[in-house]
Amino acid sequence: MTNKTYDAEIISVGTELLLGHTTNTDARDISLMLSEIGINVKYHTVVGDNPRRLRECIDIARSRADIIISTGGLGPTCDDLTKLILAESFGLELEMNEEEKLCLYDYLTNKGYSKEMTENNLQQALLPVGCTVFHNNWGTAPGCAFEAQGKVVVMMPGPPKECNSMFRACAMPYLRSLSDEKIVSHSIRVFGMSESALDQKFRDEMNAMTNPTMAPYAKEGDCLLQITAKAKTEEEAEAMMEPVIRHVMEELGEVVFGVDINCVEERVFSLLRERKMTFAAAESCTGGELAKRFTDIPGASEFFVGGVTTYTNEAKSRLLGIDPALIEEKGAVSSEVAREMAERVRLLLGADLGIGVTGLAGPDGDGVHEVGTVFVALAAEDGSFVRELRLGTRRTRSYVRRCSGNYVFDMMRRYMTGLRVTED
Amino acid sequence: MTNKTYDAEIISVGTELLLGHTTNTDARDISLMLSEIGINVKYHTVVGDNPRRLRECIDIARSRADIIISTGGLGPTCDDLTKLILAESFGLELEMNEEEKLCLYDYLTNKGYSKEMTENNLQQALLPVGCTVFHNNWGTAPGCAFEAQGKVVVMMPGPPKECNSMFRACAMPYLRSLSDEKIVSHSIRVFGMSESALDQKFRDEMNAMTNPTMAPYAKEGDCLLQITAKAKTEEEAEAMMEPVIRHVMEELGEVVFGVDINCVEERVFSLLRERKMTFAAAESCTGGELAKRFTDIPGASEFFVGGVTTYTNEAKSRLLGIDPALIEEKGAVSSEVAREMAERVRLLLGADLGIGVTGLAGPDGDGVHEVGTVFVALAAEDGSFVRELRLGTRRTRSYVRRCSGNYVFDMMRRYMTGLRVTED
Repeated sequence: MTNKTYDAEIISVGTELLLGHTTNTDARDISLMLSEIGINVKYHTVVGDNPRRLRECIDIARSRADIIISTGGLGPTCDDLTKLILAESFGLELEMNEEEKLCLYDYLTNKGYSKEMTENNLQQALLPVGCTVFHNNWGTAPGCAFEAQGKVVVMMPGPPKECNSMFRACAMPYLRSLSDEKIVSHSIRVFGMSESALDQKFRDEMNAMTNPTMAPYAKEGDCLLQITAKAKTEEEAEAMMEPVIRHVMEELGEVVFGVDINCVEERVFSLLRERKMTFAAAESCTGGELAKRFTDIPGASEFFVGGVTTYTNEAKSRLLGIDPALIEEKGAVSSEVAREMAERVRLLLGADLGIGVTGLAGPDGDGVHEVGTVFVALAAEDGSFVRELRLGTRRTRSYVRRCSGNYVFDMMRRYMTGLRVTED
Repeated sequence: MTNKTYDAEIISVGTELLLGHTTNTDARDISLMLSEIGINVKYHTVVGDNPRRLRECIDIARSRADIIISTGGLGPTCDDLTKLILAESFGLELEMNEEEKLCLYDYLTNKGYSKEMTENNLQQALLPVGCTVFHNNWGTAPGCAFEAQGKVVVMMPGPPKECNSMFRACAMPYLRSLSDEKIVSHSIRVFGMSESALDQKFRDEMNAMTNPTMAPYAKEGDCLLQITAKAKTEEEAEAMMEPVIRHVMEELGEVVFGVDINCVEERVFSLLRERKMTFAAAESCTGGELAKRFTDIPGASEFFVGGVTTYTNEAKSRLLGIDPALIEEKGAVSSEVAREMAERVRLLLGADLGIGVTGLAGPDGDGVHEVGTVFVALAAEDGSFVRELRLGTRRTRSYVRRCSGNYVFDMMRRYMTGLRVTED
């Protein structure tokens, strides 16, 4: 393939998706990865485990995309529907891949499958003649890719963990290798500035750029600027982006929380590791979500000492020793109580940093504050900081909780990098 | 429309979906609701904010579905793309809906929008001539539905909260009214028995049934049996299902945790409310996820006193007063430590029930237990219970954490309904 822009369609096969019992995260994950290498996803299609309808969807995809990526339908219970129909559509036979068959056999006999069951499962090693095989290190069914009749076809297993890992490890290098050009992309992550503000700030520059290109996107509660360059080599592409990234980072300053990372808590994780610091959290309205988000990161236990969820006033007193009179006087949703929570959980657990969050996630109010009012506090050896947030009365409970967490992690990032922690 | 089976296609419009920046939860939510009223979703399509490609997708949908449901593209910044193209495809004009315009005007002026901004936003009240208007109580852009050229078209706003709420409140009654028949559905939720075991148990009965019908489905960590009946009236449909539901519930016994509920924590919430009981949680490997899940339910604070996340051994001792010698001797991942966590958090916070969870969520092991080993404990006034779980070494961290939570909530349900809490 040459230096043109490729359009892709992702076809996800599975009746469970059409019944609403599973969410199509595969299409989202693959789309996100393809954007890194400059492949434009033009359509997502979901179709059930039905040969005729799948075949029709493949015909439509062939008429409007250069790259067809399928997810699902490779397992032993699906009668290899996806492989069969896709191979048929491109006039390819399936043949037994002896290497994959051996791997499957080893795995299945170790798992104690019966002989009959094993025979059935070995069908997963039937693959289109001449394809590039993607070995599945995360499950059983192998994936594959081939080029035929001017199209590129990639087949991925359906389980999200397998699909995501295999796409990153096998399909991305395969797709990169199809092009003479290297496409490299970086995303500059921003907290505390909206997508439209980013758009406004850089609109003229963005319109004038052709290679590299730059575009702002909104994420849940934060946003990003994606910069993408095409060149003969990766080094060349990197060199083209370097001045642009430097310029953008200078212009944006302290609202940038990281480059090429997934979320602000990942940045906090790295900072805690670099500085050999620990933290502890006292949560009220976020109800454990802050702890959950941080401990989603493998290895979190080294830096997160522990936390308390003090949903009731009594728990705030019993677990943290906050004076009931203070809660009575100032209210559970107050900057004073947030500060006490942060300071006391820090001392109680002997952590370097303490976090306190108290507020109204809704849907009901407390008659004093409007829904969406949250106080977030950070306590450290040299003092403590509190911020009052007004996250909006029409927001959902889950938005308020998620957004409060983002503010907390951003305060930690700011503290550890020597920036102003609060706006005042 | 008459007594036939309707096929539906959901077209989601939005470039952000194709970039992977948002997940298509709208299509999932709508699919789930349509299954309740016996409408078969045959395809999901995602297309960007591009008039030509959207028009082509509509043409394809018209050729293969009876009902076309769109999500997204109704807001003021999208130039009303979806409405315009869908109306055009069916030869309908758009006209200003004065009532919706007034509502929008009131809302926007209250929010302090400038005059020019307000004018732009009022375009949202342009709707196809003769359509049924769905007023948006959850946002600004109204939705709508119409019948034309033998097809039913329904348009929903894109933001998940708006789409989900409006579909339930407005589109569901609209779609129900199109049919002479009433279709009613119930789902029996099961924990502790797999989808394939359910399938095996009831296979012969299910194959012999035509109305009502019954089918098993897997959910994340549990599963369900969905029973659906068609009749002239809802009462008649209910009466047809009643003996089936009774029979299935009797056959399944204590693995049924509820009917028509979303998750096992919802059942725990109702039981705590009925019995006027409270609980407290001490979490290690779930790292706050248990507390987060329970407090996702509005009103949780009445029954959830509070929790501690004791990720480190030190936190287990400092927060809960567990003897460091016990942790040293038995190990942090042990039934003894799980039991102590449950008992101590219960007493510390003065709750009726206490929960303890300690285990290995991975990816790294501790050299003693395999990844996926989790001890879950429940403490009550009359004693405590511990269960050892082996959730599998090839599972992801998030699966192990989620699944551990399901076991904990199921133990609480079992305790409060007088069932055996552990298997031994």
